[in-house]
Amino acid sequence: MKVVIVGAGNVATHLAKALFERDHQVLQVWSKHEENALALAKAVDAVTIPSLENLELNADLCLVSVKDDAIAAVAEQLGGFKGIVAHTAGAVPLHIFDGKVNNYGVFYPLQTFSKAKDVDFRTIPLCLEANSSDSLNALREVAQTLSQTVREVNSDQRKILHLSAVFACNFVNHMYALADEMLKANNLDFKLIVPLIQETALKVVDNTPGLVQTGPAIRHDEETMVAHQQMLESHPQLLEIYKMVSNSIKNMEI
Amino acid sequence: MKVVIVGAGNVATHLAKALFERDHQVLQVWSKHEENALALAKAVDAVTIPSLENLELNADLCLVSVKDDAIAAVAEQLGGFKGIVAHTAGAVPLHIFDGKVNNYGVFYPLQTFSKAKDVDFRTIPLCLEANSSDSLNALREVAQTLSQTVREVNSDQRKILHLSAVFACNFVNHMYALADEMLKANNLDFKLIVPLIQETALKVVDNTPGLVQTGPAIRHDEETMVAHQQMLESHPQLLEIYKMVSNSIKNMEI
Repeated sequence: MKVVIVGAGNVATHLAKALFERDHQVLQVWSKHEENALALAKAVDAVTIPSLENLELNADLCLVSVKDDAIAAVAEQLGGFKGIVAHTAGAVPLHIFDGKVNNYGVFYPLQTFSKAKDVDFRTIPLCLEANSSDSLNALREVAQTLSQTVREVNSDQRKILHLSAVFACNFVNHMYALADEMLKANNLDFKLIVPLIQETALKVVDNTPGLVQTGPAIRHDEETMVAHQQMLESHPQLLEIYKMVSNSIKNMEI
Repeated sequence: MKVVIVGAGNVATHLAKALFERDHQVLQVWSKHEENALALAKAVDAVTIPSLENLELNADLCLVSVKDDAIAAVAEQLGGFKGIVAHTAGAVPLHIFDGKVNNYGVFYPLQTFSKAKDVDFRTIPLCLEANSSDSLNALREVAQTLSQTVREVNSDQRKILHLSAVFACNFVNHMYALADEMLKANNLDFKLIVPLIQETALKVVDNTPGLVQTGPAIRHDEETMVAHQQMLESHPQLLEIYKMVSNSIKNMEI
């Protein structure tokens, strides 16, 4: 497939590289951050273009991987595109393209990307949606060359997936960050809890998380929880998080 | 080393098995849950004893791996023990043994254990503390046969480690459980976010978690956060957690 890429951030970069590795042709990269566009174009044997007016309208697929609130404005400029235009955002509905382009869809990789870290794209679920079965089939075809997990997911479900990912990824990382902060303040090395973090994540590969909950809250170990709260007294925000999440654990058990 | 084990829960079981595998001799297992004691004794070629009065007083090490609030009462019955008595709890200070036994310490494996799931003990940090350098050296010697990460950690530091583990393991698992709940309620499969969960955990092996934070809160993407909060309106507890953790993410950035 001939693909053009709008955006050069983390998602655009990982997607473009995965497409390139699977022998798709990445023709052009555009980003308002010219340096990022140049770096990505170089990595996938593409060229950069100075403006969306220079977009190759006969490509098969235009992936729009820009900030959520910039997607509509980009779409306005893609009216002449002959292939399928797809955005890659979890929280943006399909209908953002209505009346702006002809064939369109969503190509949402459910993963967290960092520029510095490679990921195995085959393990990343690709959530697809499109305005027609032809567009959907075309998206599915390219998706299946990248990933072993391809799902059709409508806009409402994708919003739920995105929100659940905020809890299971963004909030989880913040829990790591809070732990790191506590450890650093006491001259303890975050590396000491890294095996625990890995095991906690591995445990839910084969288990329902609610059923493998551990810790003082699920044991109703009030003595330990009171001691923890005393330790957090000088950190009101941590204390509030401690109380609220502990209560939520206790309530879930019921 | 000749070891006796008091307790037959998750920690006792994994520790006893690791000791057995490293060619230590597990002589006896006692637990108030007789069936658990029998199962563990069988697995490590030991015998069960009907009461702590039957404990082999000439063993080298007595590991006390019972509920935090039962440790003191168990220690009261170990006065005649010739070797080292060590508990395995994160949140219980060393001095719980003061005046009760002669040689004592703490042997705290910083990991979450489930009976059904094996873990590679060599990767588990063992945090040691003791009432004398002789006891500490003896604990270190046995610890090093089990794990490649052995640290001397005092009671205050261990309390911090334990509290940070509540955030990085127990609270993290609850975030997974909340995500699971949302997905189930919308007929979506938790397996879809498992690769994301694994990647989020792997990312902090080599990165400071605060520096790899992603998601709407760190981007100050107010539009997405408002949309998420609307989705959570009928779940007040989830909504409160969403707001509080998002705020904590925003505050940490400063």
